[in-house]
Amino acid sequence: MTLAILTGGTGGAKLVEGLSHEAAPEELAIICNTGDDVVLHGLHISPDLDTIAYTLAGIVDKEKGWGVAGDTFSALELLGKYGEENWFKLGDRDLARHIARTRMLREGATLAEATARLSAALGISSQLLPMSNDRVETRVKTPEGEISFQEYFVKRRWAVDVSGVVYKDAEKSRPAPGVMDWIHGAAAVIVCPSNPVTSIGPILSVPGIRKALKGTRKPVIAVSPIIAGAPVAGPTDKLMAAVGVEPSVFGVAKNYADFLDILVLAPEDRNWRTRIEAVGVQTVEQPIRMNDLEDKRRLARELLALL
Amino acid sequence: MTLAILTGGTGGAKLVEGLSHEAAPEELAIICNTGDDVVLHGLHISPDLDTIAYTLAGIVDKEKGWGVAGDTFSALELLGKYGEENWFKLGDRDLARHIARTRMLREGATLAEATARLSAALGISSQLLPMSNDRVETRVKTPEGEISFQEYFVKRRWAVDVSGVVYKDAEKSRPAPGVMDWIHGAAAVIVCPSNPVTSIGPILSVPGIRKALKGTRKPVIAVSPIIAGAPVAGPTDKLMAAVGVEPSVFGVAKNYADFLDILVLAPEDRNWRTRIEAVGVQTVEQPIRMNDLEDKRRLARELLALL
Repeated sequence: MTLAILTGGTGGAKLVEGLSHEAAPEELAIICNTGDDVVLHGLHISPDLDTIAYTLAGIVDKEKGWGVAGDTFSALELLGKYGEENWFKLGDRDLARHIARTRMLREGATLAEATARLSAALGISSQLLPMSNDRVETRVKTPEGEISFQEYFVKRRWAVDVSGVVYKDAEKSRPAPGVMDWIHGAAAVIVCPSNPVTSIGPILSVPGIRKALKGTRKPVIAVSPIIAGAPVAGPTDKLMAAVGVEPSVFGVAKNYADFLDILVLAPEDRNWRTRIEAVGVQTVEQPIRMNDLEDKRRLARELLALL
Repeated sequence: MTLAILTGGTGGAKLVEGLSHEAAPEELAIICNTGDDVVLHGLHISPDLDTIAYTLAGIVDKEKGWGVAGDTFSALELLGKYGEENWFKLGDRDLARHIARTRMLREGATLAEATARLSAALGISSQLLPMSNDRVETRVKTPEGEISFQEYFVKRRWAVDVSGVVYKDAEKSRPAPGVMDWIHGAAAVIVCPSNPVTSIGPILSVPGIRKALKGTRKPVIAVSPIIAGAPVAGPTDKLMAAVGVEPSVFGVAKNYADFLDILVLAPEDRNWRTRIEAVGVQTVEQPIRMNDLEDKRRLARELLALL
């Protein structure tokens, strides 16, 4: 059964990992947020694509949820010495990916082409697609001005007030080749438990994608990134509130209501089900917290059973 | 006493190290071959500048004579996996330098400016100068066609016939800022025991430099890279023969005769002294093989004593 999966990085990667074990990997198309992409040290870094790639290749650092397992940080140490900003923790093995990608992009490859070549090199048989080949940049509005998502998330460790989020240049972007076909053609679309504002939001900001999700006759199923009013990880609630979305599972449902068929929520949130169903979204109650591989696989099986 | 020092990488670095111990480092200008520079993985690599910088910073891998001591090769391993050529052994710590330099160059810095900033970061107080900010590429003619010096030296391990060497685009190049002033203004010029064809040759190919060496009234002293007909290291003899220079200490002297005042040669080569002096170059006999720091410092002291 073919699945189109919309995801960000670490949070979504857990479900992607589960699905890659429970479904045929070659039947999965993972459409990844690139709003977090950043150029550091002259290198094009795609944190979400990389996290998903390392996860699918089985080399992700399982404790951190990003980067390559057992990586070292020798280059970063010297980069710091050379006066380069080194708040973004690039491991040596990780660096190779950014170097290779940057060279490919400079030589004229699109981000989708570079991603496909890097995926093949790691033996990944799922389709890993950037949401767009065009640069769409998630910018976070703070009292000190607008900063990139990575500056907000990594450099400031999300300890700064947010008054809004913009997807810069989204209006000029187009979905990467394959994205629309997979959304239209897959047996179902799965929206991972990623941040609705800074992981799924940028994907939805690419003209055509939201409309395709609305238009598809196949089920669109999301897993809530919020449990009992608190984000599973990171500043999801803060960022939702900043853009005027109620930081609850209901806020998630309302935010996706125009295209979402089913929201899978945690038992802790069962009281929200009536309100959510009132905005036209079916609900399914499941333990959605994923602490280990078995949790990830079980949730993946439950999602597949819904279809 | 100010010294202008012409050098390549590993061979010359030994004498540079000795001189940096025996003279005031801030009075040394090291004018470095960049004909070996190569772009790999989209990164600008300057092997000779880097070897000299690591040597002056005291972090060079002393056993290999290049690279950073104790470096790891994690990024390179992954670069290989991503289909990048990995015959050029870039360590993780070393990689930081190429990444930082490439970013500076892309942002508009000249190679001399980038080199100065990288030197400052490593606490190097000598002037480390590329021979030119312009690209001059040492190309080696082989039966299979023309290849870059690094392809010849590292990839093929100099196991291929050479029929000639060209310094591509030398005629369009200019000496880097500071190079001419140092040659004209230094109390002496020292030509390191580097390969005359592929280390010193490219420097001499930059219009104006050879003429400045001829014109200076201060002594120009070279240390022979050949002892008893054999190169101290590498394919010096093969490359000399390939360009029609006798692969002997006499060949070295004749090659530099138009600007050289003194050639320091090994006792093993004392029989050549008369022939060399006949072409107008004075000779000085010294143990010039440098196996350890004491050898390097002793030779440096002898050179300084000559001035």
